[in-house]
Amino acid sequence: MERLAATLADDLAAVDDALAEHMNSSTPLIPQVAAHLVKAGGKRVRPVLTLAAARLCGYAGADHIRLAAAVEFIHSATLLHDDVVDGSALRRGKPAANTVFGNKPSILVGDFLFSRAFQLMVQTGSIEVLDILSATSAIISEGEVMQLVTANNLATTEAEHLAVIRAKTAALFSAAAEVGGVLAEVSAEQRRALHTYGDRLGVAFQLADDALDYAGKAGTIGKDAGDDFREGKVTQPVLRAYAAADDEERAFWHRTVEKRRQEDGDFEHAMALLNRHGAITGALDDARRYGDEARAAIRTFPPSALRDDLDDLVGYVVDRDH
Amino acid sequence: MERLAATLADDLAAVDDALAEHMNSSTPLIPQVAAHLVKAGGKRVRPVLTLAAARLCGYAGADHIRLAAAVEFIHSATLLHDDVVDGSALRRGKPAANTVFGNKPSILVGDFLFSRAFQLMVQTGSIEVLDILSATSAIISEGEVMQLVTANNLATTEAEHLAVIRAKTAALFSAAAEVGGVLAEVSAEQRRALHTYGDRLGVAFQLADDALDYAGKAGTIGKDAGDDFREGKVTQPVLRAYAAADDEERAFWHRTVEKRRQEDGDFEHAMALLNRHGAITGALDDARRYGDEARAAIRTFPPSALRDDLDDLVGYVVDRDH
Repeated sequence: MERLAATLADDLAAVDDALAEHMNSSTPLIPQVAAHLVKAGGKRVRPVLTLAAARLCGYAGADHIRLAAAVEFIHSATLLHDDVVDGSALRRGKPAANTVFGNKPSILVGDFLFSRAFQLMVQTGSIEVLDILSATSAIISEGEVMQLVTANNLATTEAEHLAVIRAKTAALFSAAAEVGGVLAEVSAEQRRALHTYGDRLGVAFQLADDALDYAGKAGTIGKDAGDDFREGKVTQPVLRAYAAADDEERAFWHRTVEKRRQEDGDFEHAMALLNRHGAITGALDDARRYGDEARAAIRTFPPSALRDDLDDLVGYVVDRDH
Repeated sequence: MERLAATLADDLAAVDDALAEHMNSSTPLIPQVAAHLVKAGGKRVRPVLTLAAARLCGYAGADHIRLAAAVEFIHSATLLHDDVVDGSALRRGKPAANTVFGNKPSILVGDFLFSRAFQLMVQTGSIEVLDILSATSAIISEGEVMQLVTANNLATTEAEHLAVIRAKTAALFSAAAEVGGVLAEVSAEQRRALHTYGDRLGVAFQLADDALDYAGKAGTIGKDAGDDFREGKVTQPVLRAYAAADDEERAFWHRTVEKRRQEDGDFEHAMALLNRHGAITGALDDARRYGDEARAAIRTFPPSALRDDLDDLVGYVVDRDH
């Protein structure tokens, strides 16, 4: 990621300028709320995918900057609404926008950034790009609603859970990569390869994220570790441990995750159960497997330094403990 | 409005089909929430504007159906988010979606409908349409944020209040009319005329709406009459009465609207003050004046039955007591 960020440094600086310019408004509260989130130092993985894909495909114009900014705005709008829906207090280790400004501005500024994303896409004049990203936005909200429905429900199947991950996270990763190729007018085959790379990377990213919500606590740092458990979120490690559970363990999961009646020591007991059934290492193994598929997809492109960087990005996403 | 709806009956039925088709999703909660609002029998004023403008300009294709549906989805998304932001219990006389399904689905399904609106626009293949409606969506959320900032604030100027009305209501009216003309590829002058018609109609609509929130109670029916007062909303009648108020009256408005400390009899006293200063009739006079400007704009088109219907629509919007 560091190397990609260095290679794309000029482009990323231009994206930051575009973000700052387009979050502006004559209503000062809008850039205040937007900047609180957008400038809070996210990792910009999604815009990096757009920039890197465009460059990898030899794109020489300037529209990849606009699209990378559009992708980041869609992501930011989603985060603003997510934090309201989840009632999250923190985002990226700082007080979330809904904590600082309240739910109302978070909802409305999310809508604003979403509109701005479409304005940026319109500037590229590409109906194809608008087609991909409007469909993606619909899929993301479908994923969020699915998550709402499956939350705290241990009867969720792994297939259903994977569908949620694909929709709420991987869809934007795959679209972000694909639209970079669309700008460069590459072949359908290369577009598919970029899409597959983004999709598998996105699934790996989310699986690793959910595993680290537990592993972070057991391991080194991880301020927010255990959040998912406290919220009763049904993620892959929990589903795995639940599938392998005996009656007593099932009763534990029902009480803590479905009924959310939690007591002191429950998180530690959950960790013990997850480890007993290898559920965290299992989820990380899955993440690595999806990462391997991402690597295979990107290797269909001719060798280049940028291709190597995209290969390395997989390792960064899967094996981060950050 | 009845005559317009009759003239456009086939088109409106096609719009209803498009709405039903595009609110569909493999996640059943989405069409449930969406249908609760979209099928609750709104007046469809905005899609009617798109359909009528396209027909008035001699458009013979099918994209006006998609655009009318897109406009209605944008409006629906705004209403879903508005009701969460305002904590509204009722919408169109029935329990609001947030009351029935909770805030979370309302936020997420609003996002979904917004994305669907853009997918429908993409289907028309017109970047010009996407340009107009993405800019409009941004303006609507700016208007909503402005309203949040000026709410309960008696220091709001009439110009500021008009800017809120233009952004949150009139912008979608003017865009809805204009995109109908864009489809028919009319001259810049006719596009401007459609835009002006929609803008003035939208301002008239909102001014009348805000006046009727008081007049409905004094007059005939009006279930929700007085809601604005109870919520301390600063609308034109209140601003007018406040501007003309003596010290005692000002203290009343500060207590009831700014501090929202209301007692029994306050609404009746507010009504008396509004009437004493002619604030309600004044707002309705203003609405009629904007209505006249809308009429003047539409009369730049050659005479036709449809043009007459659009002329009559102004009267429906301004003088409704519904």
